[in-house]
Formats: sequence, structure tokens, C-alpha cells
Amino acid sequence: MEVKYVYSFNEGNKDMKSLLGGKGANLAEMTKIGLPVPPGFTITTDACNDYYANDEAIRDVIIKEIEIYLDNLEKNLNKKLGCNENPLLLSVRSGAVFSMPGMMDTILNLGLNDTSVVALSNATQNERFAYDSYRRFIQMFSDVAMGIQKYKFENILDKLKESKGYKFDTDLTIEDLKELVVRYKELYKKEIRKEFPREPKEQLMLAIKAVFKSWNNPRATVYRKLNDIAHNLGTAVNIQSMVFGNMGETSGTGVAFTRNPSTGENILFGEFLINAQGEDVVAGIRTPKLISSLEEVMPNAYDEFVKITSILENHYKDMQDIEFTIENERLYILQTRNGKRTSNASINIVVDLVNQNIIDEKEAIMRIDTKQLDQLLHPSFESKSLKKATVIAKGLPASPGAASGKVYFNAEDVIKASSKGECAILVRLETSPEDIEGMVCSQGILTARGGMTSHAAVVARGMGKCCVAGCSEIKVDEYNKEIRIEDVIIKEGEYISLDGSTGCVYIGDVKKTDVYLSGNFEVLMAWADKYRDIMIRTNADNPVDAQMAIKFGAEGIGLCRTEHMFFDEDRIPAVREMILSKTLEQRLVALEKLLPMQRKDFFEMFKVMDGKSVNIRLLDPPLHEFLPHDEESIKSLAKIMELDESEIRRRIVDLDEFNPMLGHRGCRLAITFPEIYEMQAKAIIQGAIQATKEGTKVIPEIMIPLVGEVKELKVIREMIKETIDNIMDEENIKIDYTIGTMIEVPRACLTADEIAKEADFFSFGTNDLTQMTFGYSRDDAGKFLGEYVNRELLEKDPFEVLDRNGVGKLVEMGAKLGRTTKPDLKLGICGEHGGEPSSIEFCHNLGLNYVSCSPFRVPIARLASAQAAIKKNK
Amino acid sequence: MEVKYVYSFNEGNKDMKSLLGGKGANLAEMTKIGLPVPPGFTITTDACNDYYANDEAIRDVIIKEIEIYLDNLEKNLNKKLGCNENPLLLSVRSGAVFSMPGMMDTILNLGLNDTSVVALSNATQNERFAYDSYRRFIQMFSDVAMGIQKYKFENILDKLKESKGYKFDTDLTIEDLKELVVRYKELYKKEIRKEFPREPKEQLMLAIKAVFKSWNNPRATVYRKLNDIAHNLGTAVNIQSMVFGNMGETSGTGVAFTRNPSTGENILFGEFLINAQGEDVVAGIRTPKLISSLEEVMPNAYDEFVKITSILENHYKDMQDIEFTIENERLYILQTRNGKRTSNASINIVVDLVNQNIIDEKEAIMRIDTKQLDQLLHPSFESKSLKKATVIAKGLPASPGAASGKVYFNAEDVIKASSKGECAILVRLETSPEDIEGMVCSQGILTARGGMTSHAAVVARGMGKCCVAGCSEIKVDEYNKEIRIEDVIIKEGEYISLDGSTGCVYIGDVKKTDVYLSGNFEVLMAWADKYRDIMIRTNADNPVDAQMAIKFGAEGIGLCRTEHMFFDEDRIPAVREMILSKTLEQRLVALEKLLPMQRKDFFEMFKVMDGKSVNIRLLDPPLHEFLPHDEESIKSLAKIMELDESEIRRRIVDLDEFNPMLGHRGCRLAITFPEIYEMQAKAIIQGAIQATKEGTKVIPEIMIPLVGEVKELKVIREMIKETIDNIMDEENIKIDYTIGTMIEVPRACLTADEIAKEADFFSFGTNDLTQMTFGYSRDDAGKFLGEYVNRELLEKDPFEVLDRNGVGKLVEMGAKLGRTTKPDLKLGICGEHGGEPSSIEFCHNLGLNYVSCSPFRVPIARLASAQAAIKKNK
Repeated sequence: MEVKYVYSFNEGNKDMKSLLGGKGANLAEMTKIGLPVPPGFTITTDACNDYYANDEAIRDVIIKEIEIYLDNLEKNLNKKLGCNENPLLLSVRSGAVFSMPGMMDTILNLGLNDTSVVALSNATQNERFAYDSYRRFIQMFSDVAMGIQKYKFENILDKLKESKGYKFDTDLTIEDLKELVVRYKELYKKEIRKEFPREPKEQLMLAIKAVFKSWNNPRATVYRKLNDIAHNLGTAVNIQSMVFGNMGETSGTGVAFTRNPSTGENILFGEFLINAQGEDVVAGIRTPKLISSLEEVMPNAYDEFVKITSILENHYKDMQDIEFTIENERLYILQTRNGKRTSNASINIVVDLVNQNIIDEKEAIMRIDTKQLDQLLHPSFESKSLKKATVIAKGLPASPGAASGKVYFNAEDVIKASSKGECAILVRLETSPEDIEGMVCSQGILTARGGMTSHAAVVARGMGKCCVAGCSEIKVDEYNKEIRIEDVIIKEGEYISLDGSTGCVYIGDVKKTDVYLSGNFEVLMAWADKYRDIMIRTNADNPVDAQMAIKFGAEGIGLCRTEHMFFDEDRIPAVREMILSKTLEQRLVALEKLLPMQRKDFFEMFKVMDGKSVNIRLLDPPLHEFLPHDEESIKSLAKIMELDESEIRRRIVDLDEFNPMLGHRGCRLAITFPEIYEMQAKAIIQGAIQATKEGTKVIPEIMIPLVGEVKELKVIREMIKETIDNIMDEENIKIDYTIGTMIEVPRACLTADEIAKEADFFSFGTNDLTQMTFGYSRDDAGKFLGEYVNRELLEKDPFEVLDRNGVGKLVEMGAKLGRTTKPDLKLGICGEHGGEPSSIEFCHNLGLNYVSCSPFRVPIARLASAQAAIKKNK
Repeated sequence: MEVKYVYSFNEGNKDMKSLLGGKGANLAEMTKIGLPVPPGFTITTDACNDYYANDEAIRDVIIKEIEIYLDNLEKNLNKKLGCNENPLLLSVRSGAVFSMPGMMDTILNLGLNDTSVVALSNATQNERFAYDSYRRFIQMFSDVAMGIQKYKFENILDKLKESKGYKFDTDLTIEDLKELVVRYKELYKKEIRKEFPREPKEQLMLAIKAVFKSWNNPRATVYRKLNDIAHNLGTAVNIQSMVFGNMGETSGTGVAFTRNPSTGENILFGEFLINAQGEDVVAGIRTPKLISSLEEVMPNAYDEFVKITSILENHYKDMQDIEFTIENERLYILQTRNGKRTSNASINIVVDLVNQNIIDEKEAIMRIDTKQLDQLLHPSFESKSLKKATVIAKGLPASPGAASGKVYFNAEDVIKASSKGECAILVRLETSPEDIEGMVCSQGILTARGGMTSHAAVVARGMGKCCVAGCSEIKVDEYNKEIRIEDVIIKEGEYISLDGSTGCVYIGDVKKTDVYLSGNFEVLMAWADKYRDIMIRTNADNPVDAQMAIKFGAEGIGLCRTEHMFFDEDRIPAVREMILSKTLEQRLVALEKLLPMQRKDFFEMFKVMDGKSVNIRLLDPPLHEFLPHDEESIKSLAKIMELDESEIRRRIVDLDEFNPMLGHRGCRLAITFPEIYEMQAKAIIQGAIQATKEGTKVIPEIMIPLVGEVKELKVIREMIKETIDNIMDEENIKIDYTIGTMIEVPRACLTADEIAKEADFFSFGTNDLTQMTFGYSRDDAGKFLGEYVNRELLEKDPFEVLDRNGVGKLVEMGAKLGRTTKPDLKLGICGEHGGEPSSIEFCHNLGLNYVSCSPFRVPIARLASAQAAIKKNK
């Protein structure tokens, strides 16, 4: 079958968006349901792709099809393009599948030339209108289609007005307008080195090409990247017969939303201008009037408009953003689309639509973009202040939110500043566990290195704190306490602002808006909980985070990292003593000191999580992470430990690793130093016993990290079981507990059938699994990963969105093999992907029992998993 | 069916080794073919495993079965155990499936007690013999079965001899012997706190248990580990009626090989003693006579023995190691087994056996152990000198061979020493590419860190140089230039010796034997080439290694690492200039300097490999590897580069990585700095053109490392193709080349179907693949991998033997997915596993086209691949 590249508005419908674009499909739909739409036709997205496939040329076959449809349009309206009586004028608009700023927007009045302008004047009996339209057309065409900058036309206009002493455009006489037309055409010739096209069909083809071209202009490309829109969709072009809102006092034009797009309130919201074309409303030269006041001026048109808005909202089952024009009291609808709205309005609108029985709960859930929810949960910058702010660098949007404060270059200074009531931003090359307290006290964190799952990123997300990571453009000079970005230097104590949702770093103190969660948020979350069939847990290492996560709806802890507990000021000496021990005996003594502290840690977690699972991961990082590396700390440690400095230095060198990520860590520590996990197992069960005795229901899950071979798990599991069972025997108490493993090494996925024999549960640690599957160190990948994503070598940063093709295959293999051995093996995910919607969908489809994410992402996970369930059951 | 735990010698045959053990199966076989074997029966390995399964107890059902067979034996021989007339005496011997030193060997004369000794005396009319046998039995039983140390008995004997003024055992009177029996029994009672068992059946059961127990004694366990023998095979026990070589001058005992076990020469080789039991031959108190002299003493027995040795060799189709006893001129064969032999003899024997039509070529190939071949290709220590040498530490056997020399602690000192004609051993914490020249000049390399695929190990194997790596027991103090091992200190210039095949480090200069390859080696290799169906390539980075590999039979280069070329003294400045460049222009200038050098590198490789494939891997390591790290080098570099030192330091810090293994390296470099690969591609094709013009046939294969995603490969491939095709167009010449990729990142295996679209070949880089699949950094894993292997958490070091369960699954997936896209995709392996026999078998079975290994392993790979092919076609 031959491809059809052009559709008349009465040939299409709203479901043909991918072919006709959003605008075209809606124009067709409105035509179909009998609304007053000026007739026209749509050139399809296929035609756009064909244009690119043919070295940016429109093939003859398509040109011919356009001419046929143009011919039909002329016949229907009994008008003719460029004709010297009853001329047809056209609007040309782009129309992509998804609404997309940055692309060419609109050319109005196409078809005007020195002949047709006279005809227009005759037909409308309004010479002024005709020439005004003509000069507007020349400017718009030149600017929008040919790229001549607007200000050059405005200069000409301003000069003329000045020379005549005019204040307003309306002061221009018909002769002035004619003069402008001449001068504008001269400008065009000078810029383009061709005459302004007088042939309307030439104008049309140039305009169509300009639309196609604008699909790939930089702004549009960036927008698509930011909004996950595929680059190969292409845009349609809508050719529509003009109606005129600028034909006098009984004409006008306007834009209206069927509801308030800021709040969602169910009240018509919009503006209009009498005697104007669409661009005048946007241009902001004249102040538009509120839509409600249209009732006084043109009550009939207003009534009809109100009726139509209601028809449209009911028809599209969503808040509509409608453009209309009134030509001599006759109402035309030029466009309708789902209106953009704030996150808050989104939720209020869908809840309201459900209450009005326009959509059902599932539809409401599907309507909410998880990104909007994320915005809603974090402060953001005021859009006005943001417009004025200067971006000085851009890093990775590592943890959402907005933060402003004075820069400090180490945790200590941040703590000091915040204790004085200052807002502080912690700026580091990269953070390490020693920085945690400084991170807690800061408003936000900025690092020059590290990726989306670097220490800074992971910890900041856990805290719900704004973080921009891996901002490689900035040079952080921690010694001189300053940031350098090319020529800009920011010194300690100077203000910057961070946008953790975009990665932008601003100079100065940008104003922020507060977080506001409406009651409808809870309503929506309750609906999500009703439809999802996967549990949502949280990654939390302390009772405060755990409490917060419960507030957000977490149903258990999926990952409690015990190492963060080790950095506490009280216990780091004992930890270091343990590490520096030369003999097992010395190590046991040090561990004995840590035992009561860990017991308390776990006891408190159990108390907070009463009745909910608490998954505790035993010590994971390599031991050298706990040792100091600067001279001063080594000296002070030597004093405390009564050791020779050189001995400490030797041990530090001994423990040093080339690739710590692939080194002596995780369960490998427990193979060589079983007493560490033994102490932790003791602490867990003693904490659990204590909590149980106080009437708390404890559900401990003990997780062994970094298992790659079943025998590792087997010996550690046996050791832990023995430890725990002995204590329970002694205390004469029985507590149910499970022992499982993190699946984070590729080999664990490949041998999951074996590993499942020794595991009560699997928790996919997709951070490390991604690192090893790709061979990317998350701390180093910043040097190339940005370029990979920009050049589309990778669709997405795999640390952000689970890589289904590679890592996902391993996860699938792990899940399937595991369940081959144990059909009811409990499966979860605790990597950062556990809070990312598309990854959650993947987990849901694999049949995982739960996802676990940082507290602030719990609502997003609830929504995303409900969406995944609804999508799957469709 | 009930399990049968005991077999009479006439119930079994030689194919029942796994049940009867090697010795038992051979005793049965010899009985079957009518040889004079003293009758007896074998308790099966099943019984041994049953013993372990029942908490080290022999179940009644088995005891009963033993008693039935014992009863039958007594009836057959018309003798009775422990009887006071015509008593039956037994020998009890262990018999595992594989001959295994370290296990309990033999108890002779079992059944003697105070009653039966009199009966024996009466029956043999030889009281002296009877009591001598009795006292020997007590000692042997006490020592071998009950663990009482031999010297305690010898002390008693020595004291008695001293008190009587005797010189020889033969001086002992019958009364003396009776006295010894009493004293020996007293010793037994003192040590065991029980009377010496007088009931022969009790003696027998204790002896059987002792055999079972000895299966798990430490020496046996270690031996199994060293020789890849499974721990769950168990041992059989052979119970055999005694014959006596010590019944006077017409009796004797001996051991003989059907061929010379050192050279393989086809001449009976052995020793015997008149009037002696087996232990006397071994004990070395009396000097045995050459087997040939038996002819004079007992010509009939000798003739019969010669006949039997010939029957046995022909029957077993292999050189036999035979134990015999002559009792009153009657010959008995006590044992036959395939004789142990030197590597050299192995080859000579199989070639001889083929020439004699006893076995065929395939059998000959299967008979040679690849490990023996490895020994043959490297010098080894003289066994005599080795016995006297002191092991001071043990590391990983990283590269086989033996080396002695004075220790030096840096490359420079080694070079200096070797230029003075000294033999030098390079000792380093770990080696880095800067050490290469020092490694070349050294006799061997010893490192304290790093695993089987560490830099030192890989490079040493490539050079065929002895290397012991990851020897963590030694503390290397490079600053003070000394090694410390506990209290031992070895200073610069002192001698050590390294055994790269065992990992042992000896103090002093241990004497070595030379490498000697017989003509039969070539014969065997030619046979191997006939049967193998996989190509053997080599990993070589320079013409010298390549030439050597060809000599060993390499059919192409599977991996030419270009980075090693970059460390040359001439070019490292240009390399550093390239890395320190701030702009693309500067970088291009530096690369332009490298181009002619690389061109020459490749030209020379092509010349040497005339007509054979040369697979060149483009630059792989992270750039920081090329930068200096010590103050002095930085200073001198700053001078050369006319740069500020601080700037160089800053760049070094900038390039520094947390996990270089997972960092900015491999093709990731080419994504960010395409001009590097562009230069290399240019150099390859220009070198190829030059060689072609000189009449050389070049087959260049360009390999892109570290690809994890097809799009990486696609853009780089396109860039290289364009570069090369442009040059060929300019030069008006056409050279066939292919572009493929190393498959070394797990994700590459998982997405191999995609990657194959852009690849002409895959080469599995199983070193990195193993690192990433296990999450083991080969440079750091030394800290735990040893313990993993020792505790059998891993069957093998996965860097040595390809891990089939995990890494193997990925390789299989990669191979299968790749061939799904391109059925004739060329597949190879270039990781260290390419030279390891069991990994080669795996590659063969997967249908790989070739394996590539270091030059010195080429013969092993030829043999191993022939064995794999023969095994598969069976």
C-alpha cells in the first residue's frame, strides 16, 4: 500500500497522534465531534522522517499530495491561495507527538503578497487590517521560518515610530504599514540574499521545511533528552485556514485552561484580547483580560465557549488548554490539548476527576508522572528567581531538591557554620564516610567527582538532601578553600545554590518554595497501595530515617547498612582497634567493645520498625575505609592506640587496594575474619531479644553481602546460625529470623540456583551489579559516562535506570534460577534502582516481592509499582 | 540390590579401580590372567566412604562380609588366622584409585601373636624368622596403624644391640628377638594405654580402620590437592595372604620397572634383596642388588619374572612398576602398577609404545600429562639439591621454571647487576610496566602481592620466565633493600632460588637442571597437531616473543598488547606528552611523534608473522599508568615537558582513579580521545602496507578492548575503517583486515548478539571477564583467594582455571549469542586460560576457532587441544 502523507482534519482522530502529532490529532478529533474548527489538513510525522531520510528534502510525491489537499481546501472554502479576490490565508504550525517547546511554533497569515493583500483588503473592507497582517506575516515568516532575528524588524518599526513621534503601534497609518512592508522586504533580501517569496506555494513549502528542520534544532533536541522523548518520532505540520481575531471590536483571540493549572481548582482559567491575533496574547504588549470578562463583551461567544470547554474536558477526560479565536462574533477553536500543570495541580485534578466519575482510580494513578511526585516531595526554586539566576556549572542531578547556602570545604567547617545558624553547602572533591555528619548539617552537597551512585549521591538521597555530584567543570581546591570554574572563583563563605533535580549550580542565594503535600496526595497514595502488588521497603541505616520512611509508607527495611554505624565518633576508635589488631585475641577484645553499641543500634531499629521486616546487611566495605589517611589523624590514632605511627602507616599500606571495589570486602571479610560477622550476628539477635521482651514484634533478616559462590554463603550462614541459636538457647527464647544474600556479583546471578540452596532470600544489589556487569567504577565513570549518555552510546545512565539489556538479563537469570531451586524464594531489590520507576516496573514484571529505596522515594515507588501493576493487567 | 563391600581377587578386574582402588584392581587383574598372586581380597572404597558417613565406624554388615571372605581365604589356603598350627598371616595395604603417597602403606605379618608365632616357627622350621617377623610386625603395626613413632622402637633395638655389643641386626639371637617382642609390647602399652592386641581379628580391624583414617591425614590431603584428586573418592583396603622373602637364601624380594623411569629406555630396571621383606628394600639399610644379577642367583625365578614383566607391560600397555617376592624359589607378584616416570621418559615411552604397535597415536597423546610437558619446557631444580634446600616462603606458582640469583629490589639494580654478569632475581612488592626491562634482565621475579594474573605473572609467563607472585609471607622493604620473613632477613645481593612451578622460595643458590627436548617431543607434537581441530595462537607483544612462539608451533598472534610498546624509553616521553596535552591540537602533535614508532612495531610483527594472523589490541590501560608517581620522575618530566611540576601533579591527581580496573580505559579512551586509536589504526595499516610491499603476507586483525555495548564498537569501528580506507585509497593498495572486539566485560557476553553485528571476531578476554564476573581484582584478591582455595570455597583459582560454572556460562552465552547473529563469527580466547588444559578443553567444546597463550605454553596448548578433540570424539 502506498504511504499516505497528508490527512484532512476530517480524516483523522485523536488516536492518530503518532502520525498526526498531538495538535493535528486534536484538530481532527474536534472536527469529528462537530466543534467549530477552521478547516485544514495535517502533513504526517512520516513525511518529516522521510524528509530526513532524503537528505533534508521533501520528495515530489509528498509535494503532490500536499497540493491535492490544498486544492481541496481551496475548493471547500471557495477561496484561493494568493488569489486576487477572496484569498485563502493559512496558518502553519508544527505538531509533534508530545508537546515540545523549542520547535518552530506558528506562522500566521501565510499566503499574503502584494496581490493578495489587496484582495484581503477588499474582501474584509479593512485595508488597515490587511496591511497590518501583511507586515506581521513578513516578520513572522522571516523570523520563524528563515531565522532572521526579530529585533531587526523591531528596530525598523521603532525607528519609524520615533521619526513620526508615535507611541503605540495603533498610531501607525495605513501608509506607515505599507512603508513597513517595503522596508521589511528589503531587510529580508539583505539577510537572505533573495527576494521575499511572493508565490504563496513557495512560502508554504519553505514554512513546511522550516517546521521539519526545527525538529532537530538544539533547543528541541535538549528538550527531548531531558524529557525522555525519542529523537526519531518526527513532527507533523498542520496547515489550517486562517480566521482573524484582529478584524475589529467584534473579534478577538484567547487561551484558556478548563481548570486552574497551578492549583487544579475547577474554574475556567484564561485570558483574551479583543481585536488581536494569537501572537499578541503571548507577546505581552497589551495586557489581556480575564476570560470571565468575555461574558460581558460577547455573551453569546462566551456561552458557546464555556459549553465547548466542558465538552472538550469531558471528551478528553482531562484538563484542557484551549486556543480560540472569535472572528466577527463567530467562535473558532484553534487548538486543544491536555494542559500543563504543576505537580500539585496534577494530583488535585486527577482526584477531582475521579470524584466527578470522569476517570477511574487506575486512570488517575496512570496520569501522575512520578517525576512530578518527586518534585512535590522536595523544595524547588521559585521560577521567577530562577530565571534571573546564573548557572555556573552543571553536574549530575544526584539527589533532588533545591538548596542554597555558603560554601564550606570540609565537614568540620560545615558543622561549625550550621551551629551558628548559617545555611551551609558542603563542597568536596568527593565525600567519604567521614563526611556524614557534615552532610547532615549541610543544606546540600556538591562534589566534583563521583556518579549517580557515588557515596555523596547515595547518602544524600538517603537523607532526602539535595546533592549535585560529579560536577567535573568545577575545580575544588580544598586546601585554599575555593572553587574555580574557568575564571570564576567562589571562596569559602560565599553563596551558591544547587538544583539537585537538574544538576545546575547557581551563583548566589536563589529563593526557594516550600514543600506542600495536599490531602489529595494521601488519597492518591491510598489508591496506589490498592493496586500495587509488590511491597515497598526502604533503605535506612538509623531510626530517624526509618521513622521518616514509615511516614512515607515504607513497609519494611530492605537495606540497613551496618557500616554507617561504624563511623560514629564513639565507635570509630574501637573499629580501628579491631582493624589494627595483630592477633585474633586483640580483635576479639575490640569487637567486644563494639558489641553493645551494635546491639543498641539494632534494638532501636527493631523498635521503630515494630512488626515490619528489618533487613540488616553485615559489614561490607573494605577495612581500609575505616582508617585515617591524613598525617594528623594518623598521629592522633597512634596516640590513642598506643602504637607506633609507622606501624599504623604500615597497616594502612598493607590494607591498601588497587581496586577496592573488587577487593577484600563483603563476605570475603567474613571468610578471613569470621569474628566480625559473629559479633554482628550476636548484636542483631541480642537486640531482637531485648525488643521482643519489651513487646515489640521483630522480623530480622540477615543479609550477607557480595556472595559469588554458594560455599561462601554456606560457611558464613552456618557460623551465624550457630551463634544465634546458641544465644537463643541460653536465653531460652525463640525468634524467627532468616539469612539471605545480596545478589550483586555477576557470578551470583549465574549460579543463583546453587546459591538459593543456602539463602532464605535474595536482594538484588543492582548498584554493584551494574558496576561489575558494565565494568564501570561508579566513582570513576564520571570521566566518560556523561559523554556516553550525551552521544547516546548508552540510552540512560545505567546507575540511574536499570539497564535491562545487560544487567537486567542477569537479574532475570538470578531471579529465575533462584526460584527454580526454591519456588517461593523471597526476592527484592535494594540498589538505587529500587526507587526508579522504569526499574520498578522491570522488578514488578520479574515477580520480585519488594523494592527498597531511600525514604524520600517511597511515595514514588508506591506510585510507580501501582502503575506497573495496572499496566501489566491491562 | 545390597551393596557388596568386599571382593575376592578372583572376582575383580583392572577396570574396577574406582571400587577396588588401583592396587586391588591390579591384583584382581593379575589373578585373572593367571599370574602367581598370593590370594586375598579387597575391601572397597565404598566401605571407606561408608566408614566416614558413619562417624568413622565400620558398620556390622561390612564387618560380617569381611569375616566371610576371611573365612573363605582360610579355607582355600587351609591356614587359619592366629591358629597354633599352619597360621595364616596377612598383609594389609591401602589402595586408592590414584596412587597416593602420604597414605598408610603396608602392614606385613598381621596375625602374629604369642601363639601363632610358635606355630609359624614350627611350620617354617625357622624360629629366628618367626620371631624376627613378630617383632617387625609389632613395630609396623604400632607405627603405621597406631601412630607410635618408629624411633621409639629403634631406641629399644639400639639399646639392646649396644648392651650386647652387636653391630648388625643379624647379630641378634633368637632370645634377643624374644626379648624385643616383650619390650615392644611394653612400649605399645605405655603409649596406647592398652595391651597390644593379641586377637588377630582385632589386629585386622584396627589395621583396616587405620587405612581408612589415613585417607584423610594431612599429607594425603595435601597430595590430593596438589594433584587434583577429589577428596571423596575414598581408599580401598587390600588384605592379602603373606609370602615370605625372608625365609632364607632361596627367598628374596624386589621392585622393578619394565623400562627405565628416568629415560624411558626399554630395559628392565630394578633392585632386589635376598632374604628380606619389602620394607628392607625401601629402608635402605642393606644395599639392594641390580635386578639383572637375579639371573645368576635364581635363574628360574628370574626367567619367570622377565616373562611376567613382558606379559604385564603388554597387558597394561604401559610401563609397569612391579613388586615381587620369592619364597623358597617360588615367584609371587605382589603388585603391579603404571610406573611413575620423568617427563622426558613419559614422552619417550609413549612414542616407543606407538612404534611397537602397543598403543596408537591418540592413546599416546592422551597419556601425556600437560603438566609434565610444562616441566619439560622449563628448567627445574636438581632433586638432590632440592632436598637439602630450605623453603623460606611459598607464593603463587605464577610462571613455571626454576631460577636462582642475587636479590635486587628495583629494575635499575637488576639491569646493572646483570650487565656485570650476575644472576639477579627481581624482588618487588608488585611489578608495574616500568619494571619490564628489569624483568627481562632477571633470572626470575618474586612479588609480595598480586595473583596468578597480576602484571608480574602475566608478563613473566609471556617471557617464559620463572615467577613466584603474591608471596604474602614475605615483607618486601624496597627502601632498605631487604626481605623479611619472620626472623629471616635477606639483604640485597644475597642468593635466593625460586620454583615457579610450586611457588616455593628457597634460601641460597639451588642447583638446576637444563631443559632438554628430545626428538620424540617433536614426534608427539606432530601427532597432537594431527588430531586437534582448534588453532593455537600466541600472546606476543614483540618480534622476539613472536619468533619464539612460532618455534613452539604458534599459528598466529591472538593478542598483541600495544601498551607494552608505549613504555619503551624512546617513546614514553611522547606518550606522556600526549597524556598531558591540554588541547586536541597538542595531543595530535604528540601522537604524530608516536606514529612512526608504532608503525615500525607493527611492521616488524607482520614481517615475523608472515602469512599468519596478527591480532592487535588497541591501547587498553588507563592513561595514568603511563605517568610517573615518584617525586624525582615528576621533576624530570616537568623539565622535559617544560611544564610546571604542580601542573603535572594536578594532572596525575585528575587522572587518578579509585578503581582503575573499572575506570577510564579500553575503548572508553577512544570514545573520549578518538585520535589515539586513529593513530594506532594508521600505524597498523601503514606497517601492513610497508610489509606487503616487501612481499610479506599480512593478516591484520584489529581488536577493540573492553566493549560492553555495541554502540561503542560501532562508532570506533567506523572511525577506524574510515582512517584505514582513506590511507589505502591514498596509497592505492588494498589489504584485507578485520575489526573485532575483546569480550571481557560481562555485559558484552550478555549482549553478544548485538555486538556481533559490528564485529568480525570475538576474542574472549577471560582475565578481565573473571575479575568482573567474580568481582575480584586480580591485584588485590591475593588477600583472600589463597584461603578460598585452601578451604575449598573455590575448587580452583579462577584466574588459573576457567570457572565453568560462572565465567564459563558467560563465555558460552557470548559464543552462542554471537554465532546466532553471525554463524561463522570467528571466536578465540586470549586470556591466560588460553594456555590451561582444562580451559582449553572447555573452549574446544564450545567450538572456539582458536586459543591464544604465552609462547612457552604453546606446546601445552597443542597437546591439550588434541586431547580435548580425542576425548570428545570418543
